[in-house]
Amino acid sequence: MSVTSPSHASAHPDYQNVLTLLKDALGDAVSTESGDLEEARADKSGHVSGSAPLVVVTARSIEDVQATLRIATQTGTPVVARGAGTGLAGGAIAEAGQIVISTLAMNRLLEVSIDDELAVVQPGIINAELNEQLEPHGLWFAPDPASRAISTVGGNIATNAGGLLCAKYGVTRDAVLGLKVVLADGRLLELGHRTVKGVTGLDLTALMVGSEGTLGVIVEATVKTRRLVAGPVAVISANFSTVDDAARAAAVITSSGLHPAIMELIGESAMAGIAAHLGIDHPGGSQLIIQADGPGAQTEADAIVAVIRSLGGTADLSLDREEGERLFAIRRSFHPAMAALGTVLIEDVCVPRSALPAMFAAIGEIEAKYGISIPTVAHAGDGNLHPNFILGDTGEVPDEIWSAADEMFLAALRLGGTLTGEHGIGILKRRWLRDELGDDQLALQEQIKAVFDPQGILNPGKVF
Amino acid sequence: MSVTSPSHASAHPDYQNVLTLLKDALGDAVSTESGDLEEARADKSGHVSGSAPLVVVTARSIEDVQATLRIATQTGTPVVARGAGTGLAGGAIAEAGQIVISTLAMNRLLEVSIDDELAVVQPGIINAELNEQLEPHGLWFAPDPASRAISTVGGNIATNAGGLLCAKYGVTRDAVLGLKVVLADGRLLELGHRTVKGVTGLDLTALMVGSEGTLGVIVEATVKTRRLVAGPVAVISANFSTVDDAARAAAVITSSGLHPAIMELIGESAMAGIAAHLGIDHPGGSQLIIQADGPGAQTEADAIVAVIRSLGGTADLSLDREEGERLFAIRRSFHPAMAALGTVLIEDVCVPRSALPAMFAAIGEIEAKYGISIPTVAHAGDGNLHPNFILGDTGEVPDEIWSAADEMFLAALRLGGTLTGEHGIGILKRRWLRDELGDDQLALQEQIKAVFDPQGILNPGKVF
Repeated sequence: MSVTSPSHASAHPDYQNVLTLLKDALGDAVSTESGDLEEARADKSGHVSGSAPLVVVTARSIEDVQATLRIATQTGTPVVARGAGTGLAGGAIAEAGQIVISTLAMNRLLEVSIDDELAVVQPGIINAELNEQLEPHGLWFAPDPASRAISTVGGNIATNAGGLLCAKYGVTRDAVLGLKVVLADGRLLELGHRTVKGVTGLDLTALMVGSEGTLGVIVEATVKTRRLVAGPVAVISANFSTVDDAARAAAVITSSGLHPAIMELIGESAMAGIAAHLGIDHPGGSQLIIQADGPGAQTEADAIVAVIRSLGGTADLSLDREEGERLFAIRRSFHPAMAALGTVLIEDVCVPRSALPAMFAAIGEIEAKYGISIPTVAHAGDGNLHPNFILGDTGEVPDEIWSAADEMFLAALRLGGTLTGEHGIGILKRRWLRDELGDDQLALQEQIKAVFDPQGILNPGKVF
Repeated sequence: MSVTSPSHASAHPDYQNVLTLLKDALGDAVSTESGDLEEARADKSGHVSGSAPLVVVTARSIEDVQATLRIATQTGTPVVARGAGTGLAGGAIAEAGQIVISTLAMNRLLEVSIDDELAVVQPGIINAELNEQLEPHGLWFAPDPASRAISTVGGNIATNAGGLLCAKYGVTRDAVLGLKVVLADGRLLELGHRTVKGVTGLDLTALMVGSEGTLGVIVEATVKTRRLVAGPVAVISANFSTVDDAARAAAVITSSGLHPAIMELIGESAMAGIAAHLGIDHPGGSQLIIQADGPGAQTEADAIVAVIRSLGGTADLSLDREEGERLFAIRRSFHPAMAALGTVLIEDVCVPRSALPAMFAAIGEIEAKYGISIPTVAHAGDGNLHPNFILGDTGEVPDEIWSAADEMFLAALRLGGTLTGEHGIGILKRRWLRDELGDDQLALQEQIKAVFDPQGILNPGKVF
């Protein structure tokens, strides 16, 4: 097998040769139709790559992925693995000269084990569809990114997706037991176990979770499932006059030892935007929407209501599932409400949850300094905020907005937080990676990347 | 700084020079007393290295660890990081020409945050002492290896220790948010976050957990804590005529959707050994000792008792804490009972919990084939078995016993399990590492090890 050096490859690859090799090996799975190529230039971040990729391979099997990567290595052609394209950091967008491997057609649930509380899935299965298929077995898959109706489990794993339930039920990494991964040169690797415990060698399963397509292509996953939570579900909707009051209440709830399954905070301008979008009356102020579940749901909900009222908030408690859904619909209307205003840059800082009030204060200062509104929602139970920068008609982020975002990232780091809680680095946050990791750790990470991908063909320009 | 190549260094290090450099830099922290050196030859596995190490450095600070590693790199001298020496795989034992860095004196709890449910600790703090110091804050640290009274949190992290509570409360990896690590060349690295979520770059925190001293020396950890579990604790002691019946009952309990906090299975010969050691009456057969906690404890315990009785077992249920402790004392007497019989090789296979009956059957076949008794206990909730090989007076494991262990490991792998659920590879299981990982993954792991430790001075001969 002849190996072309990456610098040579990216400078002058023989694209026609790459296409011929792919078509000979993969036939119908290979597309150069402009619609397919254009789609792969974008994700849900609003960012679009500067040019269309060379080709999209819609893999039907692990063997298809292996064949594609063998050709990529042989010809030194960059590869971008892609699920449903719902990322928010540009991690799965592709540009000229790149092969896109789509795993969307590898979308089957391969196995459910009720006894071992696990499922084996192909990477292209949609998160919500997996949960629909698990439900008759009395099981569910806990990672619940807001994109769960449209994002793939493979993508959830590649970004270590979070969601609303993480404070109580963990992030994606906590739900992954084992992975099958195709390496850059086409070899298939089996990582991890079907067991909860296992300490044989280094934990490459955990290393792969959140690696954003830079180490290999995830082609199968063994994931933990949980029993459906029995008992009532209590939903509390609370209103506070300021976001600071709401954030303090959220902090007091958790520091009181209460563990709601979900605790969503909606800032003042975010709430106003939702109310305008839905055409509903809103008294002003900030909302907390909280869900308690499990056998202690009612007790916990009563205690949460007491905390809210003691801190000057108003609270409505419902044990009715439909009414609870209606209350959460407010929160779920946030992204549509923002999208109606134009292109939006959805940020994703995360701070220790005790620092939530301080982070909201920092965002308020940035709003004042730049004369902009930054509507913000937060997964308050785990300190993860999504400040939204409204860009209007422009697809690209103006420098002024990046300056404001820069101040926000540095504020999160100063508070002991991170610049991305659940979206990943992708292409949009690369410039801050060094700020958080430091020179030494970044160098180590780049060396580990090189161990997996010596030619540098896996998702080049992303993360690192 | 002159760097000696590893092959040269391990062949002819200038030991006197190493000692002089260490004493000049670290003074009283440096010991060459034979008692200290002898102690570092062994751990709780029964295995003893062939010779005493060069020196033991009892680090008092991160700076001490950095100074030691700088000298080790400069002189190409191997380094073994060591906590309380309670490992069961020979992972922290040292031999001639090696520097031992003990973290036992770095044993302080540095910070407790009730609001963020985390603690910052030095690596040498004993697991049980951390829990004693957390208790007044209403918090606890969930990882609970059976060695918790004597093992350090740093050692727990280095081996990704398990314990009794893992099925419900997770393994050590799930409880580690961030780490400070000193690299082989003395540089200090800060990994991870104070937040539950965070996806900036590769997850080196998770990679470090369970790396058994081969990638760096853990000098500080930010760990998740949990609220003390309120409400009653229910303990059930169940007797079955055979271990197969007990294992099936354990599998039915979990597949019924019940989640006991602890479910310990004691095999027939293990139970007979405990009864003989304690001088108590025992009707024969196998025991399950189960604990349910939280707000649903009583309901869950009643359901568990019903399952046990429906499967032909007898069950005693107690909601009294002292009586519960007494029931668990039976399980805790297992290791002393075995130790009284001489040196013991404590194995640690883990299988999907539905495969527990099959794994017990495989052990029974190995007992018959080799004409030996293999007393076995299991953390039945997570499929982790500890088969014990009684060696009598000999310190070394006879080949015949390794052959039996070999068959046991391969049986666990065939059942979809792993050769070590919570003890690690260390020195004792290296020969089976390739069987589980395969050539490709092992090669990748060795390359990652080389990224962190290019000279190969960190715990050489362990794991890899």
